[in-house]
This record gives sequence, structure tokens and C-alpha cells, in this order.
Amino acid sequence: MLQRTDVFAAMRGDVQRVSDRVVEAARVPYPQISTILEEIVRSGGKRLRPMLVLLAGRAWTYEESFDTLVNAAAGVELLHTASLVHDDAVDHSAFRRGKPTLNSQVDTAAVILVGDYLFAQSAILAASTNNPRVVSVFSNSLGHICDGQLMEMMDASNPQQTERQYLARIYGKTASLFGCAAETGAIIGNAPEDAISALRGYGDDLGLAFQIMDDVLDLTGGSEQLGKPAGHDLLQSTITLPVIYYLEMVRPGSAEWRAVQAIVDRSRTDDAFVANVLNEIRASGAVERALARADEYIEQAKNRLTIVPDTETRELLSELADQAVRRSS
Amino acid sequence: MLQRTDVFAAMRGDVQRVSDRVVEAARVPYPQISTILEEIVRSGGKRLRPMLVLLAGRAWTYEESFDTLVNAAAGVELLHTASLVHDDAVDHSAFRRGKPTLNSQVDTAAVILVGDYLFAQSAILAASTNNPRVVSVFSNSLGHICDGQLMEMMDASNPQQTERQYLARIYGKTASLFGCAAETGAIIGNAPEDAISALRGYGDDLGLAFQIMDDVLDLTGGSEQLGKPAGHDLLQSTITLPVIYYLEMVRPGSAEWRAVQAIVDRSRTDDAFVANVLNEIRASGAVERALARADEYIEQAKNRLTIVPDTETRELLSELADQAVRRSS
Repeated sequence: MLQRTDVFAAMRGDVQRVSDRVVEAARVPYPQISTILEEIVRSGGKRLRPMLVLLAGRAWTYEESFDTLVNAAAGVELLHTASLVHDDAVDHSAFRRGKPTLNSQVDTAAVILVGDYLFAQSAILAASTNNPRVVSVFSNSLGHICDGQLMEMMDASNPQQTERQYLARIYGKTASLFGCAAETGAIIGNAPEDAISALRGYGDDLGLAFQIMDDVLDLTGGSEQLGKPAGHDLLQSTITLPVIYYLEMVRPGSAEWRAVQAIVDRSRTDDAFVANVLNEIRASGAVERALARADEYIEQAKNRLTIVPDTETRELLSELADQAVRRSS
Repeated sequence: MLQRTDVFAAMRGDVQRVSDRVVEAARVPYPQISTILEEIVRSGGKRLRPMLVLLAGRAWTYEESFDTLVNAAAGVELLHTASLVHDDAVDHSAFRRGKPTLNSQVDTAAVILVGDYLFAQSAILAASTNNPRVVSVFSNSLGHICDGQLMEMMDASNPQQTERQYLARIYGKTASLFGCAAETGAIIGNAPEDAISALRGYGDDLGLAFQIMDDVLDLTGGSEQLGKPAGHDLLQSTITLPVIYYLEMVRPGSAEWRAVQAIVDRSRTDDAFVANVLNEIRASGAVERALARADEYIEQAKNRLTIVPDTETRELLSELADQAVRRSS
């Protein structure tokens, strides 16, 4: 059996450089806000997106481009953080719409400004690459993220949505930034055109798989794993891939179909009812089918890597793809 | 007496091209949101910022650069609109913090996403100029706007703030985007370096004067003129230049000083009390002093225009400066 390199260990030092730049860019002269901001940017998890930028640039002119790659990677991470901050405010106000509080109101104002501030720092870092193509990839990605969030707000609760609509939504919401990260790294690393395009595809595929896994874990995992109750998406009226597969299986209008509909339109939200529907979904085979879909995207992503000339980088990218969907193990 | 050209009439056709592009960029495939968005972008007032972009580019290579200028001008206008949308949400939640409603909660989610969407479209238009320097001016401007908004949130209610702190805040909140507009136009129009820098200064000065006037009108005008009650800023705990001058005159700790403080910290908000304080401020001469400050900035802005070679453009820019502070007449 092949001994695999640990991608996180191999990239730790370089990723730390990105984290330092992220923290530096998020510094403000207001103690109250700077504490919140620093907490937000430090709790950045595994920094998958910065790692994608760095690895995609690594096979060509890594040393010469390193400082620019670090700026771009920090920009991608801040774009991600900014959209998370606003997304939380959006979810928050929807989730608590029955019982708004003084605190949630005041927080919303700060949350909007903090998110905007992070968007601004992200744009400044992207502009600092001095590369119009990188800036264009960045701004298009912000556009796709907003499209995805609007789709989620407008369409995510529709029980008749198709897999295709779901994929378009998570492409915008998640995958486009993974694609942006990989494309940006390849551009800055001076990869040839066909490799830039292959790495863009790799990032997009990886992002789709990542979001499908996230949605599966939301259904199957408990609060320990994700810091939120299982079925959170459904309770937020967001229908994800395993639920789409389940609804296909039980047929529109059936009792099972109407039970899902009742949660989504918030006519039934009591714990026992929700737990029962979640169990039905988990037992239906819909989860396994969604997992298989994620695996297909990971395989497709890895197949695109044959174009990467450097063996070590290719293996790290391949392992990153595997790791991205094995977050629960 | 010199017959002046009407700058709004002279630029009407070109500005219309910008407005069309703004409306086009703000199009989304969701009827509910597209209606709101179109209303927001169509109610754009006099389009002063796009006019600045166009006029600053006009004296050099206007024809050849026109399409790029229109994109940049649309980008500047959308950046302005996006920040207004978020600013309203921020004010809104603060203003109504005593009585949050279901509607205000649900609106906030949409407002965050709509604002982000407009930021994204603005970034895409800026990137479409394919000019790294323009992109850099844009992203720095977004950074300044966020700085200004954070300063407003953190410091604007401090009754011991200085004129200098006030100017730093309105530079971020307002003037930086006027400066960005003029600088961007000059860059795209291929102006020489000294003219780019003079026009940046012109835009900054104009923006400072514009915001001082806005703050004066908030104190002196009624609801007819501004669509909001007089003294709105003070009721929102924002201390502006005329109030800073007034507080200097009445000395810290005096009864008059404590009356302003009581409105700002919301311990007194009854109409009669507020009306009385507003009258005291209006009668004190503080308003005239603030108006004189705005006039100084306008003179300074106009003095910078000697570098503009084309007589007609120079006159239009000069008239734009006068018009920007004569909004009430």
C-alpha cells in the first residue's frame, strides 16, 4: 500500500503564512469589534480554500509567486469568511423570526458592517495581486456566491426542486469559491491554459462534493459534530440533496412527502415529529445515494489532475480531495 | 455676467447610458427581488458620482474610453447603492431597536443579500475595466466606506469628538467614493499623473462639502425636503459638524451641552425637548459656520481644476461642485 503524505502537515507552514495575513487584514482600531473579528478569522478551520490556492500554484513557479499566492489565498479566505458572517445573519433573522430580541437587532447592524469590512479587505488583497484576471475571477465568484444565496432564499424550500437546481445553488454558494481558489492559484503560479482550466474544474468538483457532504452530515450528524442539531437545514426550510432523493422515492403527495412539506413550511416543528421524519429519510437509502454522488465528484476532480506535472503536488491535491469529503471520520 | 452651462443638461445623455447599465447589472431572475432592486437603482437621484467619473475622463481621451468610463461609472454608482442599502439596514435596526417586528426581521435578511449582490455587480464592473489601478482605487474605496461606517457606529455619539474626527468619518463614509469616482475617470481617460492627483483631490473636497451640506440640511430642513424628520441624525445618536460647533460654543457640562447629550444617549426623545434643542442649535450660528466650512471645500475643489486643459469640461466640473452643495435651492 502506498504511503500517503499528510497534506495538512505538508502545507502547515505555508498555510500559517496565509492565516497570519488574514488576521493582519482583519485588524481594526476598535477593541469591541477587533475582538469579534479576530475570533471569526482565527476560527477558520482547516483553511481548505487557502490550501487550494497554494497547491494549485505549487506545481509551476511557486517560489517566485509565493507572496502573491499568499495574498490571493488570504483574499479567498476573507471572501469566504465575509459571506459566512452575512449568511449567519440571514439565517439568524429567519430562524428567530418568531421572537426577535433587542440583542439580535443590535447584533445585526454590527454583523452587516463586519461582513462588509471583510469583503473590502478581501477585495483589497485581490487587487494587490495586480493581476486583472485574478480580480475578474474573484469578483465573478462573489457574484456566484450572491446568486447562490439568493437561490437559497427564494427556492430552497420548494419540495419540487430538482437535483439540477440544487447543484446550481450549491455551485454558487460553495463550489464557485473552491473553483476560484484553484483557478487563482494556477493563474498566479503561471500554469499553462489547459492546466488552469483543469484546476478550475478540480476546484468546482471538490466544492460540489464538499457541500453535498456538508448537507449529508447535517442530516446524519448530531450536535456534537457540527455544533448544531441534526436536521438544521430542513428546520431552516432548506431542502438538500438527500431530501430531494427521498422526496423522489416517496412520490409527491404521499404521507411521507407531506410530512417533509410540513417541516419546511413550519406547520410542524415539534421534536418528535422532526426526529421521526429524519429517521425515515436516513433509513430510505437517500443518504447513501447522495454520498455516492459526492464520491463521483471527487473521482472526477482527481481525474483532472493528470495534467499537473509535479508528482508531489499532484498527490497532495489528490489527498486534499479525499480529505475534503472525509471530515466526519 | 457669464452664461453658465447646465451640467445636468449637458451630461444627460451620457449619464443615461450609465443608468441603463446600472439597471442591467442589477437584474435578477427573481420577480420579488428584481422589483425591489430596480426601484432602488432607478431612484438614484442626480447620479453625481457617475457624472464625476465621466467628467473627469472627458478632458482627455473621452471618445475612445467612453465604454470603459460607463462601466466604471456604473460600478461606482452600484457601490454607492450597495452601501446605502446596508446602511439603511444598520440604521433601521438601531432606530427600531425598541420595537422589532416580524417584517423588519425578514427584511433584514433580504436587505443583506441584496446589498451583497450589488457589491458583487459593482466589483464585476470594476474588474471589467481590466485596469489594475482602477480596481485598486475601487477596493480601497470600499475599505474607506467600511471604515467610515464603523467609525460612525463606534464614535459618532461621542459629544467630545473633534472636527477632525468628524472629517475622518465623513471622508470614509462619503468623500472617498467621490474621490474614487474622479480618480477613476481620470485614470481611464488617460489623464497625466498630476491631473489624476488633482482630480482625486477635487473629488475628495467635493465629497466632504457634500456630506457637510447633507448634515446641515438634516438639522435645518424638514421632512418635506429630505423625506425624514429634522434632527434625524441627532436622534440616531450621530453628532455632525454643526452640532460639534454648537457644543464647542456652549462648553462641556453646561445645561445646553447636557441637553444634546440627553438626546444622543436617548434619555430624552420627546418631540418638544428635541425641537427646542434643534432651535437652540439653529440660532447659535453653528449652522452658518458649518456652511462656511463646506464653501471652503468647494473653493478648494474648484481651485484644483486649473490643471484641466479643456475649457468646457473645466466649467462643467466647476458647476458640478457648486450644484453639489446647492441641493436645497
